[in-house]
Amino acid sequence: MTAASQWIWYPGDFEIYHHLQLSMRREERDYQWPAFWRLDDCYPNVRFRKKVHCDAVEEMTVYAHGVGHVWVDGKKHSFQRPITLSEGQHEIIVHVARTDGLPCIFVEGGETASDTTWEANEFGREWLPAGCNVLYQNREDDPNQFAFQYMKIVPVSIEHRAEGIVYDFGRETFALLEFENVEAAADIHLFYGESLDEALDTDHSILIDTIPADSTSYRCNARAFRYLFVQGAESASFELTAWYEYLPFNRIGSFTSSNELLNRIWETAEYTFHLNSREFFLDGIKRDRWVWSGDAYQSYFINNYLYFDTDITKRTIIALRGKDPIATHTNTIVDYSFYWIMSVHAYYEATKDLEFVTFIYPRMKSMMDYCISRTDEDGFIRGRDGDWVFVDWAEYDRTGAVCAEQMLLAESLKAAWACGELLGKGEAEYLKQSERLKEQINARFWDEEHGAYIDSFESGRRNVTRHANIFAILLGIADDRQRESIIQNVLLNDEVPQISTPYFAFYELEVMCQTGQLEHVTQRMEQYWGGMLALGATTFWEEYNPSVSGLDHYGMYGDRYGKSLCHAWGASPIYLLGRYYLGVYPSSAGYETFVVEPKLGGLERIEGTVPVNGGVVAVKMSSERLHVITDKNGGTVRINGKEYLLQKDMPFVLELGVRVE
Amino acid sequence: MTAASQWIWYPGDFEIYHHLQLSMRREERDYQWPAFWRLDDCYPNVRFRKKVHCDAVEEMTVYAHGVGHVWVDGKKHSFQRPITLSEGQHEIIVHVARTDGLPCIFVEGGETASDTTWEANEFGREWLPAGCNVLYQNREDDPNQFAFQYMKIVPVSIEHRAEGIVYDFGRETFALLEFENVEAAADIHLFYGESLDEALDTDHSILIDTIPADSTSYRCNARAFRYLFVQGAESASFELTAWYEYLPFNRIGSFTSSNELLNRIWETAEYTFHLNSREFFLDGIKRDRWVWSGDAYQSYFINNYLYFDTDITKRTIIALRGKDPIATHTNTIVDYSFYWIMSVHAYYEATKDLEFVTFIYPRMKSMMDYCISRTDEDGFIRGRDGDWVFVDWAEYDRTGAVCAEQMLLAESLKAAWACGELLGKGEAEYLKQSERLKEQINARFWDEEHGAYIDSFESGRRNVTRHANIFAILLGIADDRQRESIIQNVLLNDEVPQISTPYFAFYELEVMCQTGQLEHVTQRMEQYWGGMLALGATTFWEEYNPSVSGLDHYGMYGDRYGKSLCHAWGASPIYLLGRYYLGVYPSSAGYETFVVEPKLGGLERIEGTVPVNGGVVAVKMSSERLHVITDKNGGTVRINGKEYLLQKDMPFVLELGVRVE
Repeated sequence: MTAASQWIWYPGDFEIYHHLQLSMRREERDYQWPAFWRLDDCYPNVRFRKKVHCDAVEEMTVYAHGVGHVWVDGKKHSFQRPITLSEGQHEIIVHVARTDGLPCIFVEGGETASDTTWEANEFGREWLPAGCNVLYQNREDDPNQFAFQYMKIVPVSIEHRAEGIVYDFGRETFALLEFENVEAAADIHLFYGESLDEALDTDHSILIDTIPADSTSYRCNARAFRYLFVQGAESASFELTAWYEYLPFNRIGSFTSSNELLNRIWETAEYTFHLNSREFFLDGIKRDRWVWSGDAYQSYFINNYLYFDTDITKRTIIALRGKDPIATHTNTIVDYSFYWIMSVHAYYEATKDLEFVTFIYPRMKSMMDYCISRTDEDGFIRGRDGDWVFVDWAEYDRTGAVCAEQMLLAESLKAAWACGELLGKGEAEYLKQSERLKEQINARFWDEEHGAYIDSFESGRRNVTRHANIFAILLGIADDRQRESIIQNVLLNDEVPQISTPYFAFYELEVMCQTGQLEHVTQRMEQYWGGMLALGATTFWEEYNPSVSGLDHYGMYGDRYGKSLCHAWGASPIYLLGRYYLGVYPSSAGYETFVVEPKLGGLERIEGTVPVNGGVVAVKMSSERLHVITDKNGGTVRINGKEYLLQKDMPFVLELGVRVE
Repeated sequence: MTAASQWIWYPGDFEIYHHLQLSMRREERDYQWPAFWRLDDCYPNVRFRKKVHCDAVEEMTVYAHGVGHVWVDGKKHSFQRPITLSEGQHEIIVHVARTDGLPCIFVEGGETASDTTWEANEFGREWLPAGCNVLYQNREDDPNQFAFQYMKIVPVSIEHRAEGIVYDFGRETFALLEFENVEAAADIHLFYGESLDEALDTDHSILIDTIPADSTSYRCNARAFRYLFVQGAESASFELTAWYEYLPFNRIGSFTSSNELLNRIWETAEYTFHLNSREFFLDGIKRDRWVWSGDAYQSYFINNYLYFDTDITKRTIIALRGKDPIATHTNTIVDYSFYWIMSVHAYYEATKDLEFVTFIYPRMKSMMDYCISRTDEDGFIRGRDGDWVFVDWAEYDRTGAVCAEQMLLAESLKAAWACGELLGKGEAEYLKQSERLKEQINARFWDEEHGAYIDSFESGRRNVTRHANIFAILLGIADDRQRESIIQNVLLNDEVPQISTPYFAFYELEVMCQTGQLEHVTQRMEQYWGGMLALGATTFWEEYNPSVSGLDHYGMYGDRYGKSLCHAWGASPIYLLGRYYLGVYPSSAGYETFVVEPKLGGLERIEGTVPVNGGVVAVKMSSERLHVITDKNGGTVRINGKEYLLQKDMPFVLELGVRVE
């Protein structure tokens, strides 16, 4: 009998290998731009083992990507040849190595079929359950190739100009171009553009390519673009096929409302988010095409309200962490180390996936210890040589200990302690440090005069920005009195500089949702995201400044087309609408219990679905009526100060009569 | 002006990359057998930097194995395109990454020419001088290919038998076979043999290959063999070329004497050693074709009396160490970790190469700390789960703390302290621990009744073997009284089991040389090494047992041809003859001063040369006359209780008149 087999590898190494590959693929003009931080690779030399009991004689055959051999009860065998196992007990060890990819095996057999009941070892001292992925279940699969899917797409217009041909694919996409039956005496030059301006500005378009003269066919790398400008094609001929490269996701979350603009924003956010959801959660598909911990942290939350795809979250967490020893902070950024630590706990809260916490906890602990090793005697962390103290692209007093960083550190200590606790080995010292740090933060950074947290106490400038004050509410560092003070003195105070990046707007809008300003959030979405749509955006941008015009929308970092026009963090309306409008959130780990607390936020009608870890909640609400149904037990509706238990598969209907909120 | 450029890489990564490759090449029948310990790889993502001042406008062009780009004063450029540098100061950073090999660059330019004045970084916090190697000085070179040389070799006989053709290459070799103009309707099967028996025993020969039917040409991997048996060649035709694959070395050491057998032993040892001196010092060229720390430690000493090639020693030390974190002991063997630590100090003693100690010291310290972390409260190290307590292939009481291991630990602590001291950061604690440990060893393992060290004090068996007692003398743990007791009660006591491996015979014969038994050593060489020659050996074996016959000489580890017939440690006569007969050894680091203390060891006449780190000493001695000449200052002749200073290039002649020793 042959059982279902999967490709197996050293756990985490599939993710680390593909992260390495991805991190080297960023292109700019005619060179590549590998990520500027330490990149780890998979272990080149691994072994797998399993003890089996065969009730009858059976066969096994081991396939591998790599070289090596099979030991059965101490006797060596070759790959790819059937091995007969007699009735009884057997110990099987497979040894596989390769230097240019992920060593992995696929065992066809009965009791021996490869899956996570096999253990893996990198010739260190510990054996761990082998890693695998549902994407690789056939012997012909190669886990070294990420299992993208491909769909032919066609341009919505093809325009022949004097200088070349312009293809418009109608919206931003990520595709590989295939040129066949090429006849060209001279080179054909390709210029990609997220905007038409970029494609036509051949001296500055970021992504370019060349089909060498006399080629008969040419296949481009998959790239991000909406427009393609082909120069030198006038005197040439070819057949062009564009293949959209993507990973399919099951869209569980949805949102519609009485507000058509908001509906378009949600749909565009979904498309933006899908394009950036690939091997991992990327920042942007043109630039950087890398995995950034701060960006990914927000994507985890968006994902929870859209696909609830736990695999991409786990893949991203593993990839970002890499291996020990830790060389620098995650992505070189102090705060990004903290988001990484917090992400593990957030993932557990959403999924109750103890298996993953068990796997990742040793790496979480070494990350936490690394951060602690870089704190000073007073318990504060300060940027040291080579550290990037980011917080946000904003004016912020970064002198010495920075308030926002200490708050993230306190939260990380708590998260690391809590994950340890789940495994029965919580580090009491983490919790103590977290509590001590919170006291210190309140002692040193709270400014009674401003009624707010200041950026830095060491500079003497006592500067107030929104950042730390937003964290103080979101992370529960401010008490009720401080919270009210922050709302009045910071959040509603126009003299405190506005948040200008969609990155930090995620936290700002969340805190506004939490402090009863939902209608204001609705307006902000209409203005900011609606503003991009009004300019013809088909995906949301890395940043949008309503006060500039024309080409200035596309520039960033000194490059004329440096801005990413398809950036994951632009998809935050999905999270905000699901979490605070449809109002669904877990009240215990893994949504074993969850709350449905819908709010209209100034809209006449909202309707949508939210994933709840294996189930889904459908919410439909107008000022007159609330309708909720879910296929999962554990839900509670909270509305107008009352609570109603939800029954699985039983529609819950409440006539509201009056307008809510 | 264009200066001399070299390929540069992250320091140590060339060695680690080639060690990984090598460790995966061991073959057995139709599968590969990667080494069974943690293997590290080079960093996939690195950067290089240099600040230059150009007195005039000049050009630079960067070539790379890998993807990336060049930053000049903050502006990005492509590889392979000339970049113009204006007069004045420039800061250049090159970023290069690859996943399937060693990222490295070659900069053609004047001030910018790539060499070790460039610094390298793996996106950790430290910049180090870039690594390079004299083997890669041309733009066309690829440091991913080890720079072996090839020489056509021809068989001394070709015998057509009914079952196939037998080629005899006259002596053991390491060669790749190239078959051209092949015409064969069926597969052609190749069977290699270090012995004729192995080549003909097609069911058991370790190395095999197949030329598939209908191939027109076929190229085999380079392999170890003397004989080749080709089956299926009767009905086929082909042209066979054999290419000896080797690394050239400058043979500085030499030895001849009045004893023809000893001369043949020396020559055969040299050939054996040369075959095993490749990317690194191997154990054997057929098996394991790996780098073992205990084997390599002896090779370093042999090398010092033959090639004095410091590069292969450094390559081997780097390869064996790999990277942090440390997963297990070196090669999984406790003692092999200690030999590794000791080897760094031994290398310094021979070379005074402070630059290398500076590079390797951080890895030496983490190795030492790893070993210390595995000691118990009483300061002794005991084998823990997964540790291999080797000492020797011998009956040895391995209960609990093993005496020989503690002695190596004490020596390692001293070596690690001493290397730290050279850099002004010696760990006083290491020295203290070493001294405490020596006291403990004498307190727990010295057995007054036996007048010897016992293997284990925990078993109660109080077993005495030669091993720890040999170390006690060589490592200076025994005092004069203990030393004399050991000589009488152990070394000259036939009731203590004899050393049976050439591996440990290295230390045994050395201690015999040091304790005035040179004539006995001469006899042992004649018997043991002469015994192999008498059996037709063309290289020295992994092990030789005069009491067996026929096929039994070839078996090991349960495999009929499992024994390596070309094993580096078989070359120890080179060391013994150079060190104790010609009598040359350093009396201060790097042979700044050295001693020539020749002894005839029962021979009528000895003559030879010994490298002395940049120089050479020629010694010629008979019972009547001693003649010494050297091209290096600092030498002293010691003979008959007198000392004579040597002058560079001035022959020293002493009429002895009487027989010495």
